[in-house]
Amino acid sequence: MARQTIRKYSSRDVAPELLNRLFSLAARTQTMGNLQLYSVIVTRSSEQKAALAPAHFNQPMVTQAPVVLTICADFRRTSVWARCRKAEPGYDNLLSFMNAATDALLFTQTFCDLAEAEGLGLCFLGTTIYQPQHIINVLQLPALTFPVATLTVGWPAERPPLTDRLPTDAFVHNETYHDPTPKDIDKFYELKESLPENLEFVRINNKETLAQIFTDIRYTRRDNEAMTQTLLEALRQQQFIR
Amino acid sequence: MARQTIRKYSSRDVAPELLNRLFSLAARTQTMGNLQLYSVIVTRSSEQKAALAPAHFNQPMVTQAPVVLTICADFRRTSVWARCRKAEPGYDNLLSFMNAATDALLFTQTFCDLAEAEGLGLCFLGTTIYQPQHIINVLQLPALTFPVATLTVGWPAERPPLTDRLPTDAFVHNETYHDPTPKDIDKFYELKESLPENLEFVRINNKETLAQIFTDIRYTRRDNEAMTQTLLEALRQQQFIR
Repeated sequence: MARQTIRKYSSRDVAPELLNRLFSLAARTQTMGNLQLYSVIVTRSSEQKAALAPAHFNQPMVTQAPVVLTICADFRRTSVWARCRKAEPGYDNLLSFMNAATDALLFTQTFCDLAEAEGLGLCFLGTTIYQPQHIINVLQLPALTFPVATLTVGWPAERPPLTDRLPTDAFVHNETYHDPTPKDIDKFYELKESLPENLEFVRINNKETLAQIFTDIRYTRRDNEAMTQTLLEALRQQQFIR
Repeated sequence: MARQTIRKYSSRDVAPELLNRLFSLAARTQTMGNLQLYSVIVTRSSEQKAALAPAHFNQPMVTQAPVVLTICADFRRTSVWARCRKAEPGYDNLLSFMNAATDALLFTQTFCDLAEAEGLGLCFLGTTIYQPQHIINVLQLPALTFPVATLTVGWPAERPPLTDRLPTDAFVHNETYHDPTPKDIDKFYELKESLPENLEFVRINNKETLAQIFTDIRYTRRDNEAMTQTLLEALRQQQFIR
C-alpha cells in the first residue's frame, strides 16, 4: 500500500550482487514454454546514460540514477539457440513479439515488486516505446529484440506522497464487461477530479476538465498517431513485422 | 524461489473479499499517467468458464478453477470518462494498445506475486492472445478493450517440482547487447537440455534436439503466422488499428 515511484536517488551505489540476486529471483516468474523471452540491458556508464536520456525526453532520473535497466522482448537468443540445434525458428511476426513482450513485462514487474521490497526506489519509464529506435541504436539491440520497459533504479532520496487510485469497482467486472454509465464515471473519478493538485493542473493549463489535460496535452491523438508510426517502423526494422 | 505454476485446485472457494483486497493492492502498481489502463473480468459461473475454455484449447484448469480472471488492456473507460468531460480521446491506435497492454500486464504480475504470497495457486494462460475474438465475444468486451492475460486461480491441490531457469548470464547484458556465440548457447542451455524430462520429450516426439520441439511442434512458424493474422483482425475489430 505504501509503494511509490521514486525519481530521486542517493549517491549510494546498487551492488551488482544485489541486482543479480533480484534478476535471478524475478526469473522465477512464469514464462512462455519456459523460454524466458526477455533480456535486461544494465546501464551503469555515464556515457550510455547520457546517450539514452533523449529517448526518455531527458527526464533527469536517467542520468542521475546509479543504474538504468532496459528490459527487452527477446526472441533473438531463442532463435540463435534453435539455429545451433538444427531447428528453424519462425518468430519474425507480431504474435511472437507480443509473446516476448508479455514475458518481458511480467519479469519486469516481479523485479519491481522484489526490488521495492528490498528498499530500492524505482521509476518505470513509459517512454521506452515512444522512440524505440534511439534505444535500439544506443544498446545495439539486434533483430528479434525490442525494448519494452525502462527502470531507473537506486536508493530513495525522497518520500513522495501516495498517488490516488480508482476504486476497484472501476476496473473489476463480474462475468461480463459492464460499460460505465455517466453516473458510474462520476463516482469512479470523483476523488481524482477533486484532488487539489489536479484542480491546479486544470487551472494553470487553462482547461475546463482534468480529462482534457490527458486528451489535449499529455497523450494527444496527434502524438499517439505519430508514435504509432515510429513503433511500427521499429518493429519492422527489428523484424517482428514485415 | 519456490513459486510454481499450479494447475490443480482444491474445492475450497476463493473469497470475493480476498480477491478484492488483492486487486486493490495490485492497483498500487505504477500505471501510465495514473490512468489504470486495464480491467479485470472475474469469471465464476460454470457456463462462462465452459464458454471460455475453447479459447484456451480446453485446458482443464479453465473449468476446474474456482475463479478465472481475464485481464484486459482498457482504453474504453478512460475514453468514456473523456467524452463525459468535454474531452476528445484519441486512443484508437497501436501505441495506445501497447500502453494499455503494458499497464494490464504489470498489474497482472503484481496480482500474481501477491496472490502467490497469500498461498493461492495460479496458472497464467498464454493462449489469451491466440484466439482473442472468442474471449471478446464471451466476455462482451467493447471497442478499446483487449484481453492480454488469463489467470486460473484457486487453492493448490498439487505441489509440482520446480522448473529450470537459464543462468542470469543468458539474459543480462552489460551496457550493450552481446549476441550469444555457439559456445555461450552451449553453456546457457546445458542444464535445460540435460534434464531427463526434456530428453524424454525429444525421444517420444522423434526429434533430434529440444529446440526442434519448440520450432516444429509447440510454437511453429505456421501457427505463429496464422495467429498473427487473428490477432491483427481482433485488434482491428476492437478499434486499436484501422
